[in-house]
Amino acid sequence: MDFIESLSHKTKIINRYLDSLLTFDNLPQNTIFEAMRYSVKAGGKRIRPVLALSVSEAFGRHDFEGLLPYAAAIELIHTYSLIHDDLPCMDNDDLRRGKPTSHKVFGEAIAVLAGDALLNYAFETIANTDDDPSMKAKMLKVISRASGIFGMIGGQVVDIESEGKKIDKERLLYLHNHKTGELIRASVSIGAIYAGKDENIMSAFSKSLGLAFQIKDDILDVEGNCEKLGKKTRKDGEKSTFVTLFGLDVAKEMLKEETNKAVLALEKVCADTTFLKDLAYYLLDRQS
Amino acid sequence: MDFIESLSHKTKIINRYLDSLLTFDNLPQNTIFEAMRYSVKAGGKRIRPVLALSVSEAFGRHDFEGLLPYAAAIELIHTYSLIHDDLPCMDNDDLRRGKPTSHKVFGEAIAVLAGDALLNYAFETIANTDDDPSMKAKMLKVISRASGIFGMIGGQVVDIESEGKKIDKERLLYLHNHKTGELIRASVSIGAIYAGKDENIMSAFSKSLGLAFQIKDDILDVEGNCEKLGKKTRKDGEKSTFVTLFGLDVAKEMLKEETNKAVLALEKVCADTTFLKDLAYYLLDRQS
Repeated sequence: MDFIESLSHKTKIINRYLDSLLTFDNLPQNTIFEAMRYSVKAGGKRIRPVLALSVSEAFGRHDFEGLLPYAAAIELIHTYSLIHDDLPCMDNDDLRRGKPTSHKVFGEAIAVLAGDALLNYAFETIANTDDDPSMKAKMLKVISRASGIFGMIGGQVVDIESEGKKIDKERLLYLHNHKTGELIRASVSIGAIYAGKDENIMSAFSKSLGLAFQIKDDILDVEGNCEKLGKKTRKDGEKSTFVTLFGLDVAKEMLKEETNKAVLALEKVCADTTFLKDLAYYLLDRQS
Repeated sequence: MDFIESLSHKTKIINRYLDSLLTFDNLPQNTIFEAMRYSVKAGGKRIRPVLALSVSEAFGRHDFEGLLPYAAAIELIHTYSLIHDDLPCMDNDDLRRGKPTSHKVFGEAIAVLAGDALLNYAFETIANTDDDPSMKAKMLKVISRASGIFGMIGGQVVDIESEGKKIDKERLLYLHNHKTGELIRASVSIGAIYAGKDENIMSAFSKSLGLAFQIKDDILDVEGNCEKLGKKTRKDGEKSTFVTLFGLDVAKEMLKEETNKAVLALEKVCADTTFLKDLAYYLLDRQS
């Protein structure tokens, strides 16, 4: 299998699992099921769960079944954060992945609850695994920390409070290492844990990859095609980004540099990292 | 110790634990710590964690240390649900427990994130316990289900969709058994699990208690004193409640009936249920 085939194979496994997770009996609260499905199925790239599966595979564990609940939990958390980020009181976005945002379709109240529901359901999904409890405990710790006040939410708060202000490089890095970086690091960690390795065995890789991912996002916000991205571009006007802070050329250099650092870090790990390296370059070149 | 002393003793233990849980180092995301503390410390009755401790005690387990993280997790979840319920797009409340609501103090964006943060931190708190992983797994399952789409959030959705409509008794019961009832049931369940009992051993008690609790809330909304309640009264005008559906007199009869059912259910359980019975009557008579 070449890289694209393998990527598409993994994405299919993940989408099939997410589908099954979001299939419910008919109940009076049906609207929330619809709202959850709407946002999860709106067509994300599934980068985080793909990473989890690929790391497990790199360490020789190819049976993904027991990893899927944790990988899916991270995707549910990522999706909830987008729904809440798009709310009128946050970024006030009408479009996400080429479709109207949750509050545009279901109204604000249901959008708030759909976010809450996806976050809660992530942990319910972890609770429902019938893994050995000690692996579950480890996974729960990694994921809940990455998504919380010391991880993603911490970054979101710094983001909101930095709006309209000129911030320095240190704060920009803190913001993104938390807001985007932590969930990406957690995705790599759960793959390693599942394969019986230390959760930090690929942390140099995941840290650089997370940063590269965010720099690319900032570049796409300026250079990207709104149609391909499926969301409004040039909306970061009020925000400090790698592009506004360093200029487009330097940001592009930084992107290459961080990607190379990620790939170099992989070479120090005793594992079959071919797919992960290709993934790093694929993310460097992505148009959406 | 008489009932009031014992209640105050348990409340103190819980408040001390919550304080320690919400003490953080100084970090760039400090605002979220403040917002979390503001709502948790606004002075709730701590009924849910008190229930958990009392059930454990009824079954003879008096060392609460290992139970506190789970009991506190439920209180954090309860608090997050209030913050999100109060948002302008939901109930649009300015006052809660006698103080301005979270979005009035911190703005809507931070209020949304403070809710998210408390929900996530509940699970992070569970993750950080160093209990045996199999008890942790059981607790996680009970709590995550009770707070999610098949529990509290399910009830919130039905509540929102019932606004301005005349609903029947069946739907009203479904709504409240989920919105209020599930977290109360979970509080009782975790106390039982901690004492080594089946999680459902007191389910007849907790079901009736949860219902009585909600009927009392509806009565207080009509009869209560705004100052004592610390929130706007008569705000349920748009909503179907036990009072609007059955009238005040019948609602009061139902409250007594459910409380008696709760107390009777306790007599069938082999445990020292004196405190729990007193608690049921205390909740019947409460003025806030």
